Amino acid sequence: MNAETALRDRLRLVLLHTTHPGNIGAAARAMKTMGLRDLHLVAPRHFPHADATALASGADDLLASAVVHETLDEAIADCHWVLGTSARLRSIPVPGLDARDAARAVVERLQQHEQQIAILFGQERSGLTNEQLGRCHRLVHIPTTPAFGSLNLAQSLQIVAYELRMAALEMDGLPPLPAREDPPAAREKLEGFYQHLQGVSRRIEFSDEKQSRSLQARWRRLFDRAEPSDTELHMLRGFLSAVEKKTRD
Amino acid sequence: MNAETALRDRLRLVLLHTTHPGNIGAAARAMKTMGLRDLHLVAPRHFPHADATALASGADDLLASAVVHETLDEAIADCHWVLGTSARLRSIPVPGLDARDAARAVVERLQQHEQQIAILFGQERSGLTNEQLGRCHRLVHIPTTPAFGSLNLAQSLQIVAYELRMAALEMDGLPPLPAREDPPAAREKLEGFYQHLQGVSRRIEFSDEKQSRSLQARWRRLFDRAEPSDTELHMLRGFLSAVEKKTRD
Repeated sequence: MNAETALRDRLRLVLLHTTHPGNIGAAARAMKTMGLRDLHLVAPRHFPHADATALASGADDLLASAVVHETLDEAIADCHWVLGTSARLRSIPVPGLDARDAARAVVERLQQHEQQIAILFGQERSGLTNEQLGRCHRLVHIPTTPAFGSLNLAQSLQIVAYELRMAALEMDGLPPLPAREDPPAAREKLEGFYQHLQGVSRRIEFSDEKQSRSLQARWRRLFDRAEPSDTELHMLRGFLSAVEKKTRD
Repeated sequence: MNAETALRDRLRLVLLHTTHPGNIGAAARAMKTMGLRDLHLVAPRHFPHADATALASGADDLLASAVVHETLDEAIADCHWVLGTSARLRSIPVPGLDARDAARAVVERLQQHEQQIAILFGQERSGLTNEQLGRCHRLVHIPTTPAFGSLNLAQSLQIVAYELRMAALEMDGLPPLPAREDPPAAREKLEGFYQHLQGVSRRIEFSDEKQSRSLQARWRRLFDRAEPSDTELHMLRGFLSAVEKKTRD
């Protein structure tokens, strides 16, 4: 099983006593964009609710399959590792990890063991209580700026979900970035252009035999960095040809 | 100048033709949590606006100092490197980077040169147009799941801002995680506990001379992993002493 599948099937996000149903919807959307699926709610104030559906905008399947519990203990009964998120640093006796390291640890554990892992998100205003943190093996911390650590529930969850996906992709191998539609030309074509350019430079007395070498090097640095495509080289050489034609007279 | 300061002073986020003022507020909040400050708006539909202020929730200083432009060219006139964000993969002839690599590249560049860098965020529904992308040196892509790539403006910006901060912290050195309030005890104390435990184990005939060695190793693995504090060891030994006292009779 690859890491992406493991995350989808065995990683649970648990929202505790959420006050605003819109946040549940935003959470579902954030989860779905990052390939997560298993949403659990402990005693949400309002659910289901129109605001949740509106904010989910396309992730309503996660709302439909969300599991509602009365207590946290019920929500994590079958989980082997439980992490609690906290927007600010807290001095509690639970070892802390930043979101990136936590995500890597989660993905690694899911690969090593056929286990369930849960990540808890506390109530909007107050976060996780000390009792809830007492259920956690690790505390997850997002390194916001100390001067303004005010991340809301949906934002924190977005970052954690994103880091989980990045960790899974790191393990599975990141998908290739989209290729340039107009790929860089082969070296030979580029050399043809440089010769053409040199010829024209002399013809127009932009450079003489002596200068030519260092100038050529500068041109090369510039155009090599630009990695021109065939069509772009065609354009450049078209320009040079036009100069030649004009100066032939 | 450290990377955090460089980001704050020379990295600009530019929001183009934003439709919903709430998104401008959420953007300001996301920026501020990650230590960014320089917000530019190109022809926002409504600004200033009560929704922007409401969603900024504490980051209204960024709204107050936001610079409004009529055109994109005006907004990036003094910028040396321009990146454009795109929720989905696009086959356009601008080299792509994922958000993490883009953030690292930005932080590196800000350290190398006294330059301004801009990151562009397109209109909510349509994203950046091809003409706007034509102003970009790099395209920034967030690797959402292909099945559901629906990140909204505030979410994308949150992730990009977070990656920028992480890249800066990587360069400056990550701040230390909060220390355990009740730090692990010194080895010597732990050894005292293990001896105590061994004595009591024999006394209660939990282990005999023969078994004792492998059992001792298991106890060690368990408690070493738990990294008990002084007070926790005190508690454990209090328990052992109570056992001793009871078995003395």
